[in-house]
Amino acid sequence: MLVAYDGTNYHGFQRQTRWLAIQNVLEDRLSRVFGGRIELAAAGRTDAGVHARGQVVNFFTEGTIPIDRITIAAASVLPSDIVVRRAWEADENFSARFSVVSKIYTYRLHVGETSDPLIDRYAWHVRPPIDVESMSAALKLLVGTHDFSAFRSSSEVERNPVRTIFDATIDERFDPIGDRLLTIRLHADGFLYKMARNIVGAAVKVGRGRMTLDELKNIFDGRDRNAAPPPAPALGLCLSEVYY
Amino acid sequence: MLVAYDGTNYHGFQRQTRWLAIQNVLEDRLSRVFGGRIELAAAGRTDAGVHARGQVVNFFTEGTIPIDRITIAAASVLPSDIVVRRAWEADENFSARFSVVSKIYTYRLHVGETSDPLIDRYAWHVRPPIDVESMSAALKLLVGTHDFSAFRSSSEVERNPVRTIFDATIDERFDPIGDRLLTIRLHADGFLYKMARNIVGAAVKVGRGRMTLDELKNIFDGRDRNAAPPPAPALGLCLSEVYY
Repeated sequence: MLVAYDGTNYHGFQRQTRWLAIQNVLEDRLSRVFGGRIELAAAGRTDAGVHARGQVVNFFTEGTIPIDRITIAAASVLPSDIVVRRAWEADENFSARFSVVSKIYTYRLHVGETSDPLIDRYAWHVRPPIDVESMSAALKLLVGTHDFSAFRSSSEVERNPVRTIFDATIDERFDPIGDRLLTIRLHADGFLYKMARNIVGAAVKVGRGRMTLDELKNIFDGRDRNAAPPPAPALGLCLSEVYY
Repeated sequence: MLVAYDGTNYHGFQRQTRWLAIQNVLEDRLSRVFGGRIELAAAGRTDAGVHARGQVVNFFTEGTIPIDRITIAAASVLPSDIVVRRAWEADENFSARFSVVSKIYTYRLHVGETSDPLIDRYAWHVRPPIDVESMSAALKLLVGTHDFSAFRSSSEVERNPVRTIFDATIDERFDPIGDRLLTIRLHADGFLYKMARNIVGAAVKVGRGRMTLDELKNIFDGRDRNAAPPPAPALGLCLSEVYY
């Protein structure tokens, strides 16, 4: 199933015992629809406050609800901030988690002197000046197959830190009074925990002129998370597309 | 001052005694900043649930706060869904209400089989099929100087119903799964009460094939509000720009 959610009110995707996560809500509510406990595998374990428009999940069921009724049935049991956008019957060997070929995360930044209440629910508000060309150059440094240890969460140490970023771009739009909406788009074969937000945090530091491209390259090459800038806040990040 | 707000939680712009309106909040909170009761004149009296990114207000004050500190001072007293984006000193004869030359309202529609939690807070969700070319043709019918009685609120009867629409366009974007985000942009010398939402309601009815262009033209020429389709919901509408 293709799932979208506004992550503002949830403690991330992955099921939690103490906090409400997207997975708790999906599994608990959808179990009613399918008439038997369901367990989800998911493409991305989005963090607390992170959104999704293209999350993919799969599960096994002996429920008999017709495929083309699932989105409507799901809407009848889910809260309005979690939506099943499409449903298909998958191959028995398909795993929403392990069959992933690549994913696209997008990150929205609002650059303006003041906040904008219609934008800032889903964008990080930063004050100018910020130079988009140097941000773009910073992102280009990271394209390719690299050890991304400098951009993973400091709490994560065991996984293989090598990932391939296929493309890292930034789109710039102006509103009528000159405020800018920047959309960073990161396409990779996988993301380490907090990698997307750490990359955006570094790109913004470069865009503000508080870090040079050489300094960024040194931190990247040094693979030391503690030398890298802090992550961008969760509210701007969205899991946009997953490819299989 | 240029003001933006998320109208979701307010009963419109204009001051109310029983309900909370944007004007209540702006006047009450800003009076603290300027040290004396202020009374606002505003470019547009947006309705309950309608948003603004380019509302313009003016007022007289003997307050001594420097102009370039006003946005910051306002942010310290206003809730996060109402923002003063810019402030200038105006000519003594300027009126945010009466000096208006033209305004642009935008209306967002999300066309998709299911809702999208990241879009539908500020867009009207309608199910396909909907034909954008016929919507565009419907909007073009209204361009020019006309009697807009068929598109004003049925509760409003006294004002001169003649307005000039300079331009009425529709922009179409697709998301990765084929859902569409339509943005209707209406530029006019003024808008009757509910005129923008009534126009969008009619354009959507034409786009759905439930009304022909000839039928729309007859209703328009007949100036009978009761023959026209119901208004589009408030949440998709935004006062975007005001020209003086």
